[in-house]
Amino acid sequence: MAARRGLFISLEGIDGSGKSTQARLLAARLRAAGHDAVLTREPGGSPGAEEIRRLLVEGDPARWSPETEILLFTAARRDHLERTIEPALAEGRIVVSDRFADSTRVYQGTARADLRAVVDQLHRLMIGREPDLTLIIDMDPDAALARGLARKSGEDRFEDMGADFQARLAAGFRALAAAQPGRCALIDGTGTPEDVAARVWARAERTLP
Amino acid sequence: MAARRGLFISLEGIDGSGKSTQARLLAARLRAAGHDAVLTREPGGSPGAEEIRRLLVEGDPARWSPETEILLFTAARRDHLERTIEPALAEGRIVVSDRFADSTRVYQGTARADLRAVVDQLHRLMIGREPDLTLIIDMDPDAALARGLARKSGEDRFEDMGADFQARLAAGFRALAAAQPGRCALIDGTGTPEDVAARVWARAERTLP
Repeated sequence: MAARRGLFISLEGIDGSGKSTQARLLAARLRAAGHDAVLTREPGGSPGAEEIRRLLVEGDPARWSPETEILLFTAARRDHLERTIEPALAEGRIVVSDRFADSTRVYQGTARADLRAVVDQLHRLMIGREPDLTLIIDMDPDAALARGLARKSGEDRFEDMGADFQARLAAGFRALAAAQPGRCALIDGTGTPEDVAARVWARAERTLP
Repeated sequence: MAARRGLFISLEGIDGSGKSTQARLLAARLRAAGHDAVLTREPGGSPGAEEIRRLLVEGDPARWSPETEILLFTAARRDHLERTIEPALAEGRIVVSDRFADSTRVYQGTARADLRAVVDQLHRLMIGREPDLTLIIDMDPDAALARGLARKSGEDRFEDMGADFQARLAAGFRALAAAQPGRCALIDGTGTPEDVAARVWARAERTLP
């Protein structure tokens, strides 16, 4: 791994929580404040990882087993880390990523509780990097699901897993925030995007160099 | 994992060694002898794994880092195992696979020696299955490379890594056969396909139920 100089911020939350909008707004605000910010996303964020993304977000919900899915997410993350995140951090830039490893912990750990240990072992073996700050956009699962479904992007494989799954995801993200209060902050996702962006900025600003 | 009833045979060897031909001939001979044989291959062997295969065998040799490549091979293998190999074994069938985990051990362990431990850890964590018998078609690397290049299938990413790489692979497969003589047998790959098939059959027959 290259020497560490930049700052790595991830945005997390359930489908429809608005985290992609917030990642975009945060990167724009960082740039407006004179920082060199890189906006990226998972799965994807590098040419190879974007190809793996298509295998993950399109098609039937039962297309992959949870174990195969974890391996594909980890492959995409390794490529993203090597080719986008680490080079940007080595140049001292601020990386804002729409999702990172916590999504795999919560999504796959929620789908099958006994896989959480496998996710953690794979992360230690093949990734080994955590964000400096993770902002979790907290949102009522029913409201988020309605918003997500209204969107129908063709990348709906996880939304298609249903309302009960989304509710368990929301609980999983809250548990993560409680377990790692140093790195993770729960952000109230209600109100307009600008309301939420103000809360995101207030928390992110405290971590800026 | 389902209860074990069938028999799992893998064919291994460098590109151009003739192992795909031998896998096909072995499956045909098993069927002719009254066995219920399934012919499959890696990477691939199930619909999902075949999609991952395209990411692995096409394109620029530097397309993926060795670490990302190992994760993609393991993802494809997990799908292949769950959806093709284990169901066939549970039905008591004989599975003949053109490549399995030893290819990852030798290819990625050869490309970067320090990754062999990572390959083994991933295998234990996510795969955990070894063939009952592995037949390694041993072939002079220069002769095999000439044969492989003459073929030019569009799936040439590993052949494109060059003659020195192929020579190190051949040495890696020989070392594997020496290290695991109970499971692995080195088969002389010289002569006509029928000559080699006779050697393959002589060894396989000793393991049949």
